[in-house]
Amino acid sequence: MDVVELSRGEAMRLLASAPFGRVVFTRNAMPAVRPVNHIVDTDDFVVIRTRLASRLTSAVRADAEMVVAYEADDIDPIGHLGWSVVVTGIARQVTDPERIARYERLLQPWVEGVRDSVIAIEPTLVTGLRLAHSAERSA
Amino acid sequence: MDVVELSRGEAMRLLASAPFGRVVFTRNAMPAVRPVNHIVDTDDFVVIRTRLASRLTSAVRADAEMVVAYEADDIDPIGHLGWSVVVTGIARQVTDPERIARYERLLQPWVEGVRDSVIAIEPTLVTGLRLAHSAERSA
Repeated sequence: MDVVELSRGEAMRLLASAPFGRVVFTRNAMPAVRPVNHIVDTDDFVVIRTRLASRLTSAVRADAEMVVAYEADDIDPIGHLGWSVVVTGIARQVTDPERIARYERLLQPWVEGVRDSVIAIEPTLVTGLRLAHSAERSA
Repeated sequence: MDVVELSRGEAMRLLASAPFGRVVFTRNAMPAVRPVNHIVDTDDFVVIRTRLASRLTSAVRADAEMVVAYEADDIDPIGHLGWSVVVTGIARQVTDPERIARYERLLQPWVEGVRDSVIAIEPTLVTGLRLAHSAERSA
């Protein structure tokens, strides 16, 4: 098995195709991670909106320039083939009412009944890898 | 859809059943995340060993008391049902030759050809959640 690096374009396309991912942030100086669903906006911003993000929301509010990572993957545990993409950048709470309304239409939270915030992650650093059979290396 | 908290025992059993997860750590003051395969040892330590952990290995070497998080999940993106578990604790490079040999037998890296290290994550904090239909709340 080999690891093949993905281009930024391939990585963003795969992330956009994924139904959910995991947001990674620092909370009380500890690494934190939780699954959320997302959309990738036309400007490649990763937008999340769920109850699961509530702790992240507090953290983003407390520090407007918080850097987070967002990861999605699709890996076959039997064949050990698949991909993983990580976007790293500043997460900001969306405050513009028109953008909030638009994202609330496009992105339905999986967990009901709790007020949530809309957070947009700037795609400053985009990395991706594909696990491929060694023979594909030269392809 | 509701979020149901898992007990530590349930969470560790689910994590042990998962073929892989994602290790979350801080690198150059930035959140970092990458998929790896793992085993859960009898003492609930999460053990990882892959080329994907090489950046983590450098970080662990530089700071013997580095705290990491390890996440695994199994979520159906259609039905929005499933679970996620996060273990948070100190990650240490395993240096005892007998333990290394044992883990090298039990845990085969998915990516070939690169010298790796064995890292054990102490399960100090274990959290888990299950996404369940609202009707299951009272079950």
